[in-house]
Amino acid sequence: MMQYECKIKVRYYETDQMGVVHHSNFIRYIECGRTDMMEHYGFPVEQLESSGIMLPVVAIEGKYKMSAKLGDILRVVTKIDKVPLAKIVFKNEVYNQNGDLLFIGQVSLGFVDMKTHCPVRCPEEMAKAIEKELNKQ
Amino acid sequence: MMQYECKIKVRYYETDQMGVVHHSNFIRYIECGRTDMMEHYGFPVEQLESSGIMLPVVAIEGKYKMSAKLGDILRVVTKIDKVPLAKIVFKNEVYNQNGDLLFIGQVSLGFVDMKTHCPVRCPEEMAKAIEKELNKQ
Amino acid sequence: MMQYECKIKVRYYETDQMGVVHHSNFIRYIECGRTDMMEHYGFPVEQLESSGIMLPVVAIEGKYKMSAKLGDILRVVTKIDKVPLAKIVFKNEVYNQNGDLLFIGQVSLGFVDMKTHCPVRCPEEMAKAIEKELNKQ
Amino acid sequence: MMQYECKIKVRYYETDQMGVVHHSNFIRYIECGRTDMMEHYGFPVEQLESSGIMLPVVAIEGKYKMSAKLGDILRVVTKIDKVPLAKIVFKNEVYNQNGDLLFIGQVSLGFVDMKTHCPVRCPEEMAKAIEKELNKQ
Repeated sequence: MMQYECKIKVRYYETDQMGVVHHSNFIRYIECGRTDMMEHYGFPVEQLESSGIMLPVVAIEGKYKMSAKLGDILRVVTKIDKVPLAKIVFKNEVYNQNGDLLFIGQVSLGFVDMKTHCPVRCPEEMAKAIEKELNKQ
Repeated sequence: MMQYECKIKVRYYETDQMGVVHHSNFIRYIECGRTDMMEHYGFPVEQLESSGIMLPVVAIEGKYKMSAKLGDILRVVTKIDKVPLAKIVFKNEVYNQNGDLLFIGQVSLGFVDMKTHCPVRCPEEMAKAIEKELNKQ
Repeated sequence: MMQYECKIKVRYYETDQMGVVHHSNFIRYIECGRTDMMEHYGFPVEQLESSGIMLPVVAIEGKYKMSAKLGDILRVVTKIDKVPLAKIVFKNEVYNQNGDLLFIGQVSLGFVDMKTHCPVRCPEEMAKAIEKELNKQ
Repeated sequence: MMQYECKIKVRYYETDQMGVVHHSNFIRYIECGRTDMMEHYGFPVEQLESSGIMLPVVAIEGKYKMSAKLGDILRVVTKIDKVPLAKIVFKNEVYNQNGDLLFIGQVSLGFVDMKTHCPVRCPEEMAKAIEKELNKQ
């Protein structure tokens, strides 16, 4: 298991009239989680895109366990447990500062050539880095 | 099957640097779909909330089939196929103006008392209206 | 004065924990207003961009007079009162369904060449269309 | 002059199809700036709201000097230079990691009683804390 964590502070505009963070923002928080993870491990999205590969989301699922509130500092956990081929799957958990699990879910993204819009395989360098990381543990 | 459709025009700020609508906005589009559906059938969210009941999202899942672009006018289809008890499930499909299926998914929401934060049953009037609608067809 | 109006229905996710539409969404509503206006008069943003010209915002100002709520259907008024040269200025007013003025403001955008990132003049065809419209009245 | 700084990393979903951060997000970034500043100085928005006072935006203005891109880490500077009475004014500058000024603007917010929706004065404790801070320098 390859795991990465980042902290996200709830922003005022992310709340809704129920007085809690609007559910759609968790979909955005976990994007921050995987973007940071990819950067941390040496394959930032910017670099992937400038090499001509996009990484659109193909599937998403999540369960909301508890709400987040203004003032909360969320811990976004992002995991990869398989070497990516044509797709990469990120698993996520979001906790608040008290350790309560707020959200659990996963997102699948596909590697796509920017010009042809055809699916491609995960760049070898990225796949190897992930494989190496997974073997470490 | 109870079904409702609305049209949503893609907004500039909803696009991202891939040049298409950011995936998180589909989660928001289908919220528009169910909000409009509820209003259409006589139980708008505002009324539910002013009666002391919130309807937070408890689970979400979706598959992204094709991307949406600026200029697209999306057709958001929202369906209910079961009388709600403690939860209500909305099934969604989003199509573009050419009839291409872009997104398919579903969202579960729970009825919650605003004061106690405890789950409650779907208000009887709303459950009956849905039951009546489902029996029509 | 060249004037265009469109209707925007408040979306749930646009509200915040004050129970009203978050102020940043008015900045987005007026973008919808000018995008629709440009499309209506035959120079949609998509076309401008595909001809190699971007239209980034360079200045914005607005006053918030009253809040918008879920259920509101807003009337976004967008005006142009001058033929654009290097910049185009849109003036906006946003009203609710009762005719109350909620927001008044204006946005300046600059014409920029996508490749060189240098300022350019408003495309002649667009400038002429606006001039013709302004002379009509 | 009372001044506070925070860092904000650009998020993927904040970019638009021009390939840069959508202008409306700067309005949100400076909200983060003032929210953090208020928390830092001991009068967090949550506390203000739970004491029955809201702080809606009444006016906003800004100039966009340069665009922000994915990967940028922005420095949001927030300043107060006057003891608030019925309104509080925050002045903002946003810089990127290279020290380039991207945005300069200011926001006025009004103190409003949550129940009566009438304007009220800035809570004394908050006004005093700001006055003390301004006298320090």
